[in-house]
Amino acid sequence: MTAIRTPARHFAPLAIGAPEPYRSLPVRLERMIHFVPPQVEKLAAKVPELIEQVDVVLGNLEDAIPADAKEAARKGFIAMARANDFGATGLWTRINALNSPWVLDDLSEIVGAVGNKLDVIMVPKVEGPWDIHYVDQLLAQLEARHRIEKPILVHAILETAEGVNNVEAIAAASPRMHGMSLGPADLAASRAMKTTRVGGGHPDYRVLEDAKGDAPRAASQQDLWHYTIGKMVDACAATGIKPFYGPFGDFSDPAACEAQFRNAFLQGCVGTWTLHPKQIEIAKEVKAAKEVQEKVK
Amino acid sequence: MTAIRTPARHFAPLAIGAPEPYRSLPVRLERMIHFVPPQVEKLAAKVPELIEQVDVVLGNLEDAIPADAKEAARKGFIAMARANDFGATGLWTRINALNSPWVLDDLSEIVGAVGNKLDVIMVPKVEGPWDIHYVDQLLAQLEARHRIEKPILVHAILETAEGVNNVEAIAAASPRMHGMSLGPADLAASRAMKTTRVGGGHPDYRVLEDAKGDAPRAASQQDLWHYTIGKMVDACAATGIKPFYGPFGDFSDPAACEAQFRNAFLQGCVGTWTLHPKQIEIAKEVKAAKEVQEKVK
Amino acid sequence: MTAIRTPARHFAPLAIGAPEPYRSLPVRLERMIHFVPPQVEKLAAKVPELIEQVDVVLGNLEDAIPADAKEAARKGFIAMARANDFGATGLWTRINALNSPWVLDDLSEIVGAVGNKLDVIMVPKVEGPWDIHYVDQLLAQLEARHRIEKPILVHAILETAEGVNNVEAIAAASPRMHGMSLGPADLAASRAMKTTRVGGGHPDYRVLEDAKGDAPRAASQQDLWHYTIGKMVDACAATGIKPFYGPFGDFSDPAACEAQFRNAFLQGCVGTWTLHPKQIEIAKEVKAAKEVQEKVK
Amino acid sequence: MTAIRTPARHFAPLAIGAPEPYRSLPVRLERMIHFVPPQVEKLAAKVPELIEQVDVVLGNLEDAIPADAKEAARKGFIAMARANDFGATGLWTRINALNSPWVLDDLSEIVGAVGNKLDVIMVPKVEGPWDIHYVDQLLAQLEARHRIEKPILVHAILETAEGVNNVEAIAAASPRMHGMSLGPADLAASRAMKTTRVGGGHPDYRVLEDAKGDAPRAASQQDLWHYTIGKMVDACAATGIKPFYGPFGDFSDPAACEAQFRNAFLQGCVGTWTLHPKQIEIAKEVKAAKEVQEKVK
Amino acid sequence: MTAIRTPARHFAPLAIGAPEPYRSLPVRLERMIHFVPPQVEKLAAKVPELIEQVDVVLGNLEDAIPADAKEAARKGFIAMARANDFGATGLWTRINALNSPWVLDDLSEIVGAVGNKLDVIMVPKVEGPWDIHYVDQLLAQLEARHRIEKPILVHAILETAEGVNNVEAIAAASPRMHGMSLGPADLAASRAMKTTRVGGGHPDYRVLEDAKGDAPRAASQQDLWHYTIGKMVDACAATGIKPFYGPFGDFSDPAACEAQFRNAFLQGCVGTWTLHPKQIEIAKEVKAAKEVQEKVK
Amino acid sequence: MTAIRTPARHFAPLAIGAPEPYRSLPVRLERMIHFVPPQVEKLAAKVPELIEQVDVVLGNLEDAIPADAKEAARKGFIAMARANDFGATGLWTRINALNSPWVLDDLSEIVGAVGNKLDVIMVPKVEGPWDIHYVDQLLAQLEARHRIEKPILVHAILETAEGVNNVEAIAAASPRMHGMSLGPADLAASRAMKTTRVGGGHPDYRVLEDAKGDAPRAASQQDLWHYTIGKMVDACAATGIKPFYGPFGDFSDPAACEAQFRNAFLQGCVGTWTLHPKQIEIAKEVKAAKEVQEKVK
Repeated sequence: MTAIRTPARHFAPLAIGAPEPYRSLPVRLERMIHFVPPQVEKLAAKVPELIEQVDVVLGNLEDAIPADAKEAARKGFIAMARANDFGATGLWTRINALNSPWVLDDLSEIVGAVGNKLDVIMVPKVEGPWDIHYVDQLLAQLEARHRIEKPILVHAILETAEGVNNVEAIAAASPRMHGMSLGPADLAASRAMKTTRVGGGHPDYRVLEDAKGDAPRAASQQDLWHYTIGKMVDACAATGIKPFYGPFGDFSDPAACEAQFRNAFLQGCVGTWTLHPKQIEIAKEVKAAKEVQEKVK
Repeated sequence: MTAIRTPARHFAPLAIGAPEPYRSLPVRLERMIHFVPPQVEKLAAKVPELIEQVDVVLGNLEDAIPADAKEAARKGFIAMARANDFGATGLWTRINALNSPWVLDDLSEIVGAVGNKLDVIMVPKVEGPWDIHYVDQLLAQLEARHRIEKPILVHAILETAEGVNNVEAIAAASPRMHGMSLGPADLAASRAMKTTRVGGGHPDYRVLEDAKGDAPRAASQQDLWHYTIGKMVDACAATGIKPFYGPFGDFSDPAACEAQFRNAFLQGCVGTWTLHPKQIEIAKEVKAAKEVQEKVK
Repeated sequence: MTAIRTPARHFAPLAIGAPEPYRSLPVRLERMIHFVPPQVEKLAAKVPELIEQVDVVLGNLEDAIPADAKEAARKGFIAMARANDFGATGLWTRINALNSPWVLDDLSEIVGAVGNKLDVIMVPKVEGPWDIHYVDQLLAQLEARHRIEKPILVHAILETAEGVNNVEAIAAASPRMHGMSLGPADLAASRAMKTTRVGGGHPDYRVLEDAKGDAPRAASQQDLWHYTIGKMVDACAATGIKPFYGPFGDFSDPAACEAQFRNAFLQGCVGTWTLHPKQIEIAKEVKAAKEVQEKVK
Repeated sequence: MTAIRTPARHFAPLAIGAPEPYRSLPVRLERMIHFVPPQVEKLAAKVPELIEQVDVVLGNLEDAIPADAKEAARKGFIAMARANDFGATGLWTRINALNSPWVLDDLSEIVGAVGNKLDVIMVPKVEGPWDIHYVDQLLAQLEARHRIEKPILVHAILETAEGVNNVEAIAAASPRMHGMSLGPADLAASRAMKTTRVGGGHPDYRVLEDAKGDAPRAASQQDLWHYTIGKMVDACAATGIKPFYGPFGDFSDPAACEAQFRNAFLQGCVGTWTLHPKQIEIAKEVKAAKEVQEKVK
Repeated sequence: MTAIRTPARHFAPLAIGAPEPYRSLPVRLERMIHFVPPQVEKLAAKVPELIEQVDVVLGNLEDAIPADAKEAARKGFIAMARANDFGATGLWTRINALNSPWVLDDLSEIVGAVGNKLDVIMVPKVEGPWDIHYVDQLLAQLEARHRIEKPILVHAILETAEGVNNVEAIAAASPRMHGMSLGPADLAASRAMKTTRVGGGHPDYRVLEDAKGDAPRAASQQDLWHYTIGKMVDACAATGIKPFYGPFGDFSDPAACEAQFRNAFLQGCVGTWTLHPKQIEIAKEVKAAKEVQEKVK
Repeated sequence: MTAIRTPARHFAPLAIGAPEPYRSLPVRLERMIHFVPPQVEKLAAKVPELIEQVDVVLGNLEDAIPADAKEAARKGFIAMARANDFGATGLWTRINALNSPWVLDDLSEIVGAVGNKLDVIMVPKVEGPWDIHYVDQLLAQLEARHRIEKPILVHAILETAEGVNNVEAIAAASPRMHGMSLGPADLAASRAMKTTRVGGGHPDYRVLEDAKGDAPRAASQQDLWHYTIGKMVDACAATGIKPFYGPFGDFSDPAACEAQFRNAFLQGCVGTWTLHPKQIEIAKEVKAAKEVQEKVK
């Protein structure tokens, strides 16, 4: 009862007039995807300088945007996209969930208004290839209607147990796939995992050493995300798309943020999200350190 | 690289506010799906009497509707849906192909305007479960937005080689699946088959008897559609959905039409399309004869 | 969400003490499986002479045995198995359906009483490999308990649309698989096909020639079972198990019976069911004719 | 060669007269499954007070019950089930392995005697969906025979490499699936892993820091079970069933027991086994701590 | 336990230095593949005139070439390839079976000697994608070694039950796939079908009409190959490769040959084999008739 | 579009005259696979004494052998194989990659010259079952041609993300599968992981403890290879083949080497590679320690 497109059809456009899908991803430096709430005017005003600092500016429409600000965020994103020249910096948006009341307008209005400036659409809570197929087909129709010249790519957030189970099928679902990010908060909820902050581990996830008489017993903390990131990286690397770490929520702890970013980088992620300006430099440093290492290897 | 929804999630609504999917199809008599070109006013005027005669009235938006009449057909269908009380008669529409410039408006406008009267949407050229997933998710969002009270079902036309290959996955793709129809003209084109009229066989598809001296050799004509209908019926019966024969294009040959309808019925199809008023009685008779037989069996 | 045993484990016994599964089927002549209702005493009395005439004697416990005779049939079968020396003739039983109230006792009592004389168990309405897995595991436990010395084989009846869809998985589900039979009456019901007698076609399944002026139009009758038998034969041949035709219900029409048997043989079936003594000779002749042909080819 | 039931058939009862399967699991608090050897009379006598203390009482028939006590354990369990009112406390049994000489009587006698009081049957060494299909079908027949009023659920122990490979298919094999437990001792044996106590890690599984001159090198102990539990949790969460930690064998080390329970809980397990009364409080505390955390998050 | 290449890797060359695979098949007229036994000198002498008459010349190394002529046939083919300018006419060879002692030299010597003139290699008895993967990888290495400039394509003969079961996976196994031919003689043997001549049906495969009193009963002969060709055509059409009919062995019956060719063409085959010069014109006529029909449709 | 061989065919020889495949692996002690560069004469001279010390001698033809020494290495290996009596010590070779210019000669010349002494061929960069199918079929042909008496086994190196994704299918691809080794350097490259030496982890892969005031924060190093080895071990254990750790590149750090070997052993690997004589004793000790532990358990 399962089926996939034949290889030849995999690379065919899904609507008459939609642009030809890429055969392989365009080469771009994407060390960090910087999240901006587009309805907040003072932040929107800083976009020009942000463009100089980051590799990707993402206008966030989903989580962290209150329900009564959804329309303002969408309009804010369109305004921001129109008002700026992004140069080599990527322009992305994160749309609302596929079962939400906003997603259809998110896609229709944004592609209609600024589809030719948009690089990537980030889709939350992707559970299987069917979710990619929906966005893929709808984007093709919108691209055709609005004469978009290059394919808009799709980036999936892995934040449900279903999504992790199906991660290989998600990665291979469409030539429109740009990559994937770990969504640790929702994924923890989906799995009933416990963490103490968004994107972090848990201080009590520890291996306790065997007792030796009455000596105090060491207990080494463990990485809650090792398996998940490992599996996501394999799915992405095997299909030629890009794995990313996601959010780190505790802005007051740059050291923990750096550790989290670095661990994901060491396992194979090529970039991360940045939710706060402070995190931008951390992302650059982690990556730079890595690149130095590569040279000395 | 393939994946399917787990059984529990299969039956969950795909948008917040969309109606609960059916667990099993509502019981309805659907001996024929009668096609109406909704932009033709004099035919629209006859809908009230058609409602008395047929089991399903389908407003056709796709093939046979010229490109410059697509919008008129859509509006005509909405008007027809609003103007009539269909009682126990089904109200369906056939939308344009998923890669066409019209399908997005077909779905949005019709569900928005008359979604609570619409029973089934017929989707052309379904190639795999991904096509159903697209329509399924989009319908859920439109149902939620327009407060549709019962799920709008989906009926797939099997008219490509890909679709036949994937017919089992198509049948099981969603609880929204109502059934499937054979689309012989496009399927013949997809396969490079040859037929001499829409929905017919080919007079030269014959088995020639072995020669016996110089006696003339008999040549029995064969059913071009046996394999295809057999496979479609199995996919439908195994998932509890309904297989239908499709169009018979030669209105001047009622005997051939009846033979074609009957053959499909004998292989397990529960109904057929009717493209011309003359075919309505043929569909009823074929079915009636069948029901008599069932009683005497 | 699907899985199959690894090849090495496929051939391992499923219970401690159960006999080692066969690596390939024992070679036996099985031109016909002759059905006997074991509760009918006068027929049971004829078993010794039947053993001389047929290749396989099957004690039928399922369809055609009334609910209030189920226990008598089971006891009759055990008595028949004990009372006779079957020599090279096969001894089979057809158990009741897996969802029926009788099947558990059918299996437990028969394997317990006469498991060492039993060659094959025919299982009705097999829908997927799960049904074979159930019988396979239960038989292993019963074999172990009763110290059965050679594996009891399983023969599936293909009589639902689900079964036809899953026929390849059924054929490969266990090294206990002996073969499969077409069950045309129940399969027709599962598919809503129409036939006029058990195992026959339908006189109205015909291709009508194109009209040529007013000349009468020929209409060639078609084989309702071509696709089904073709698919069953491929599943069996690919796994090294044996495909059989099933029942022909109209004992008053030996010519039609012969045609039905022969068609299945020509498509690749190696044997058939015989429900009436008259059909035994028909089965032998069809097979003999075939063997002659093979020599002259 | 693989196949799965269609979604609609997934939820159908497998025997005429068996209760309708659940669409979703009943909500119950199951922090610990407490193991009792039912043939030990003094422990049986304590069941009434145990019912007050624990969420689930499990009568163990498998490992730890000697071969010559298997029958006594089974009878003891039936007596215990009859003698007590379990109220909101769950009543489970762990049956012997599917290839053992005891399992058929375990299932038949227990369902026959106390099927209406039994909540869940724990099945050891599940290797693939075929094992669930066997138990599922057999339970349906026993439920029908003994007029069981609500479906008896199945809980699989994951204790072979095959089982881990097939864990997603096992989780989705039947609506009767309640959940899964990690069986670390047998799983370690199946994989040739090394552990020093049942359910523990290994003191030598350590990452050694790089050398820095002659300074002593730290070596952090690692969690041997991270991958396994992560994969099990995803399979369960994706199908709406419950993952559990299994046994911790060293009753003399409550701190290690607590660490092991907590790590599994943090990765998403909802409960654990308790093999000794001392472990009951540990299970409650781990869970309570977790619930506090959830509130403060 | 199954896996397929991801779409992006599907189109990558399999050896360093091998030519880039085609994304879609070159457009060529291939109405007939004409078989030549290359070791027969007088036939080799006629190749220049054959090149004018046929669309494809195939040097046959397999069935019909005696074991002691295998080397001569291979050398003859190389000589023939070198001696002629094939212009727009295709140059193919049919190699020996993958389990035979000749196939490795067939591939190595031919690609080494005339790889740059060779269009397609026909592979007998393909049972699954693994057979294509073997030839695919070996050809890539030989192409790299001998600096072949365009990819040598692969054409599979469908002549076992396994092959028919796996036909969709075979069609999609490699971008090197050109198409497939029905091999009716070996396929009949694999399935235990009966036919009276290579590529023909069987005069006794007939549907017998119901009796009407004592009137003689008509019996319409049926097409033994309908299911097989239908399934092969769907697999090919869905992947954009070409289905062909295979051999017709009775050169003395051009009418039966024409009927067989035409039936396959009507079901979707784009060409046929020709084993005798007489069959060349038949192939052209069948195709021409078809093209006329397309125009008048 | 996927397919696998049926179980019965899985164990059939792939060429006429090739030896019967094993049903289960021969029992051999294989604690270490010792790598020798066969073109280095002074090392070849030490092979006799190496045979006494190690369980397996492997002649390496791939990585670490310069392109201009490939032929010398191959000839050196053949000479080494001929010159020595290996007794109970295994003789293996590692061939060049399947897309390299050397692999075809590696296989042909070695099997031709010393096929009857060769136990196992190690194949680098296996990405899916197709790679095993290629080597499997080619070996069968070479075995048949050179009258090899027992099957030459295949050992895959897991060193790409694709390979890890497909590891279960690779393990089950052929009865010729001996086992698998982790190839950490190439696998890290395929995944964009970062490590500081071949086979090691990364000193910065650490979990940082939560801050407690201004106290220094502990940071426990983590095992980069836990997920990968766990998944490889399950794939191997489920199919009855052997998982191995691969290379550890830093010969100057025996403690780190020992830690790496031991961790893999504790997760279920049965042996390791040794690249330097110093590592032989480490491998023995790790294994011996383990065996002691097993006894005391």
